[in-house]
Amino acid sequence: MGVVIAFEGGQRQTASLDSLVALTNSDMALVNEFIMEKAQSHVELIPELAGHLINSGGKRIRPMLTIAAARMCGYTGLHHLKLAMSVEFMHTATLLHDDVVDESDLRRGKQAARVIWGNQASVLVGDYLLGQAFKMMVETGSLDCLRILSEAACTIAEGEVLQLSVSQDTSTTEDSYLKVVGAKTAALFSAAAKVGGVIAGKPRNAQEALESFGRNLGIAFQLVDDALDYSGKQATLGKSVGDDFRERKITLPVVLSFRRGAEEERNFWKRVMEDGNQTDDDLIYATKLMERHGAIADTIERARHYGSMACDALAIFPDSEWKTALLESVAFCISRAH
Amino acid sequence: MGVVIAFEGGQRQTASLDSLVALTNSDMALVNEFIMEKAQSHVELIPELAGHLINSGGKRIRPMLTIAAARMCGYTGLHHLKLAMSVEFMHTATLLHDDVVDESDLRRGKQAARVIWGNQASVLVGDYLLGQAFKMMVETGSLDCLRILSEAACTIAEGEVLQLSVSQDTSTTEDSYLKVVGAKTAALFSAAAKVGGVIAGKPRNAQEALESFGRNLGIAFQLVDDALDYSGKQATLGKSVGDDFRERKITLPVVLSFRRGAEEERNFWKRVMEDGNQTDDDLIYATKLMERHGAIADTIERARHYGSMACDALAIFPDSEWKTALLESVAFCISRAH
Repeated sequence: MGVVIAFEGGQRQTASLDSLVALTNSDMALVNEFIMEKAQSHVELIPELAGHLINSGGKRIRPMLTIAAARMCGYTGLHHLKLAMSVEFMHTATLLHDDVVDESDLRRGKQAARVIWGNQASVLVGDYLLGQAFKMMVETGSLDCLRILSEAACTIAEGEVLQLSVSQDTSTTEDSYLKVVGAKTAALFSAAAKVGGVIAGKPRNAQEALESFGRNLGIAFQLVDDALDYSGKQATLGKSVGDDFRERKITLPVVLSFRRGAEEERNFWKRVMEDGNQTDDDLIYATKLMERHGAIADTIERARHYGSMACDALAIFPDSEWKTALLESVAFCISRAH
Repeated sequence: MGVVIAFEGGQRQTASLDSLVALTNSDMALVNEFIMEKAQSHVELIPELAGHLINSGGKRIRPMLTIAAARMCGYTGLHHLKLAMSVEFMHTATLLHDDVVDESDLRRGKQAARVIWGNQASVLVGDYLLGQAFKMMVETGSLDCLRILSEAACTIAEGEVLQLSVSQDTSTTEDSYLKVVGAKTAALFSAAAKVGGVIAGKPRNAQEALESFGRNLGIAFQLVDDALDYSGKQATLGKSVGDDFRERKITLPVVLSFRRGAEEERNFWKRVMEDGNQTDDDLIYATKLMERHGAIADTIERARHYGSMACDALAIFPDSEWKTALLESVAFCISRAH
């Protein structure tokens, strides 16, 4: 991509997912086979619905993290593939349930499963994939990995419920918002990276470094996503512009704009977010307010801050192509906003 | 209760849950403490919603099965309590998701959680409880139990999806219907009983006996439930009469009535179940048709057949108060219809 991202402490990192994709390529081919195999069922609707989402072109960044973490830690077995699959299924199950919860019509630029097969099937197929994820974890025989991933499952659900209760509340603070992000997004990134170190038998300090790497990368990833939702760029990413706005989600760009805005602006945010009284022009005005207060730019700055922490967390690992690939993927996440 | 149920082979069994409740009483007190503790979260909505369902007076028959199976097998540790809690949480999560899927307004005679807190929260709190269930299983350190229960989780979800696809289809055969019941209800009964034997370290034949006991008891339990849905008795059980009818669920009484009915009757079933064109009088007429063809009585006869298999499955265990309690609970399930 040629983009270079500057992090705190003067570290500069090429922004690219290419190395990670290339290095994990053969492992990911096996993970993808597993995914197709384990989404099967004699109940036809299951592979049909699961396949719709599985084949919808997600980047599979979470399972790549598990693989890269395990490989960077020198793991040579096969269990990391099962863990990677479990992580992706947990993510897919979350997406299916999220679409029901958010009443979304689109997912990755395609019709959401719930629109085609209904909310009912989306809830149940999500449950099925979660069950399959746990079955695969059991196959690795690692109780530590099972503990980490089942804790992540709880935390993710907690984060989603928390998001429900803060949603449409313009008085949400940056801290509360970060709690939501830490749970609903960062918990799975964090677990995905950590289990790679655990399955490789690495000591606690390496496990914690990976956990911290994943958590901070996850936060950066989500913040950039939030920024992209208000930028024209996202159209090229297969999402509709202003989804969060229409769903009245309070994300960091809104939190910052609300806090930095004058009384009149705050009334605007209350009307569109709390009362849900919106027109198409309101989205344009919202973006203008964000620009006025540097809310998008500062959301990306915050993301860069978490990206720095992610990079620093990997410092205890000796240099390797795997480590470089992981560092470049952090920069890539930030660069999506540029 | 004084009721005695006759099973195939001339076996006669007192129908009562009293012995099971009395014997498991002190263990269940600990399980209930666990349940309250693990339904906690710093996210307020979670204990609020979970508590609503947890305190709604379910009989907790599934965790009692786990405890009784473990104790009958001579288990003296504490892990069976964690397994019992996991089983109940899996069940609670299923109920929360079921209500969303079925769009039910009532659950155990109270407003369904989804009516009070919305579908969104019900989906997510269900996910949270499922995560907590897996965390507890991990704490037992038994990969065998984790395997059995995660397989059950998949099977249950598969059964629910299968039910979606056969729902409102009057041509459903008894076999297809039994497949649904085997998955959505019997899989958890079966796993609940089996893990009791597994945690007690019993050999495979004992584990399989418990699995078979649980599966057949689960089928009997569901068939009696289906019969009760068309009988006045269910009003005393805190359910509304005719729920299945209004939700156009094809259960065994409908399958039998449809198959045994004349052309005109079949047209009636198609109108009310497939087209969903129903009046209150139709429920009365449906019950009359069931009576005409002995559909309710034969559904209970079928249940008695599965009950017999459940009792026979326990034959390999030496006599004990635990075994007697389990046998009486089978008879109790059948007797609910009397």
